[in-house]
Amino acid sequence: MAAPKLSNLDLVNACDSFPYPPPYRSFNPQLRSRLYSLKVVGNNTPLGYVLPAVAEVFRNLPDWSLDDAEDDATTTPTLTIVSGTNVAERSAVVAKTCEALRQTGAFVLLKGWRDELYPVYGLGREHLFDIERAASPLFGVNTYGVHMTVYTRSQESGELKIWVPRRARTKQTYGGMLDNSVAGGIATEEEPFECLVREAAEEASLAEEVVRSGARACGTVTYIYVRDERAGGETGLLQPECQYVYDLEVEEDVVPKPGDNEVEEFGLWSAEEVRESLAKGEWKPNTALVMLDFFVRHGVLTPANEKDYIEIVSRLHRRLEFPTP
Amino acid sequence: MAAPKLSNLDLVNACDSFPYPPPYRSFNPQLRSRLYSLKVVGNNTPLGYVLPAVAEVFRNLPDWSLDDAEDDATTTPTLTIVSGTNVAERSAVVAKTCEALRQTGAFVLLKGWRDELYPVYGLGREHLFDIERAASPLFGVNTYGVHMTVYTRSQESGELKIWVPRRARTKQTYGGMLDNSVAGGIATEEEPFECLVREAAEEASLAEEVVRSGARACGTVTYIYVRDERAGGETGLLQPECQYVYDLEVEEDVVPKPGDNEVEEFGLWSAEEVRESLAKGEWKPNTALVMLDFFVRHGVLTPANEKDYIEIVSRLHRRLEFPTP
Repeated sequence: MAAPKLSNLDLVNACDSFPYPPPYRSFNPQLRSRLYSLKVVGNNTPLGYVLPAVAEVFRNLPDWSLDDAEDDATTTPTLTIVSGTNVAERSAVVAKTCEALRQTGAFVLLKGWRDELYPVYGLGREHLFDIERAASPLFGVNTYGVHMTVYTRSQESGELKIWVPRRARTKQTYGGMLDNSVAGGIATEEEPFECLVREAAEEASLAEEVVRSGARACGTVTYIYVRDERAGGETGLLQPECQYVYDLEVEEDVVPKPGDNEVEEFGLWSAEEVRESLAKGEWKPNTALVMLDFFVRHGVLTPANEKDYIEIVSRLHRRLEFPTP
Repeated sequence: MAAPKLSNLDLVNACDSFPYPPPYRSFNPQLRSRLYSLKVVGNNTPLGYVLPAVAEVFRNLPDWSLDDAEDDATTTPTLTIVSGTNVAERSAVVAKTCEALRQTGAFVLLKGWRDELYPVYGLGREHLFDIERAASPLFGVNTYGVHMTVYTRSQESGELKIWVPRRARTKQTYGGMLDNSVAGGIATEEEPFECLVREAAEEASLAEEVVRSGARACGTVTYIYVRDERAGGETGLLQPECQYVYDLEVEEDVVPKPGDNEVEEFGLWSAEEVRESLAKGEWKPNTALVMLDFFVRHGVLTPANEKDYIEIVSRLHRRLEFPTP
């Protein structure tokens, strides 16, 4: 039996899977109800969405306050960090709690502890606190990354070919799946372009000068992902993400090579081969969206050959609901 | 006194000016309240937003039904086309009403009658009816267009230069303002690319083969515009639009020329000159957004030089609230 063929909109729905607010039609509107908004004390701006089952764990923890808002239809449930008046103090509170939750084994997710910090921003772009990367989906805060597509273009035919890595089969998450040429998360205090240069060296052995001179910023891909089994850890957690997108056109003598144990191999794939592998579901969900955005910008997907063109282009650029830097 | 310098986000706000639904923060949330949803009988999908003052004009017209929904907090006010069971019949009803409103002078907007039909689609992408172009903002339905940026790239320096037309000062709307190299509305039954070829010939005297072989689809720019004085006619009307965006890189010997009386002249502008003119508010509002999208895709605007990068990229690709083809 042939595997089901996914449409490009199916791929978008699989990653931008959190329902939009009314009046948009949503595939699962009840997901929105009863979410707790994450806040810091003295600041009314929601910073993340916390599932009720996660919020419950914080009910009697020091430094945290839970408001179920059950008696008041005009407010929403809230989980508030009540200690700390600056970045360092709030970050310390969050770190202490996350470390304790890790020790008690409260969440499977925290077994993937990375010792990397991600920043959380307020409405005035102010840096409010940092949080361990592995813990960020518990709080549903925005996270940020860089994704770059490295490609060649034939001098004669103009045909595009794309450098596609396959993730190591030993990776805990999405092992063996296809990925963008270079991708990584932006740590706190890191600039997107510097993160890109670092990841390009680590993951693809690309020389710094090639990336600095050739990589072109091409926008963002933004979505709100509802974590499923393949992401590892608890399912249903919300992960709003902003990926800064870059293109790097290289000559045929520039060949990316695995630089760490995260990538198994790189292949040079035609656009058609990439499209077929996308339809087979072989790509890590968010990297499929970056690939679709590349195809839209490069005229591979067009209004004439993609029936969901308008919907796809908008959905690849979802407006996030929490403040960004 | 120096003129105020507009940020790129100011330009986005001036065109994508209809508030987003909660939980997004909106600059003018009360605009959303009391809007009438346009529907066709037997179909519950909203197709447009009608201002109360406009809806009032339809209260006792044959073929139309107004539901103020005042007694029921769970429904929204609705203006329904109650006659017609197919495209031809519904289109005839709409045409008859619009023609009558034109004759009675009910709306200043209808003095700009174009004798061009725009299509309206349902949730299953079905073509529901056509409507005179000039009347479409009365009903707040989605409209569609093509916008193309024609540019050259220096062989030596790689510097981008963009062909920028200035609209004829005699044009009723946005006279004397700057515009995209080629732009036009897509009439009913017209394919985007065929519309582009036609407009490129009419407005810029570009040879058909140059456009067919060189124009590259690069996505869409989508927004919901609240019409202001410069648009002509009644203000406050809602205009959700989807512009299919194309790039055309040409050699320096390809020079666009005004092909009709809509364009005064074309100039070849550097990216910096375009940015300065954008900041001075010299561009027709929606064409500024197409220019910003071009700058994002071509690495002129980057996360490093544009503080509102994330917000701008999402806002240029607003998800529309009504069905698209």
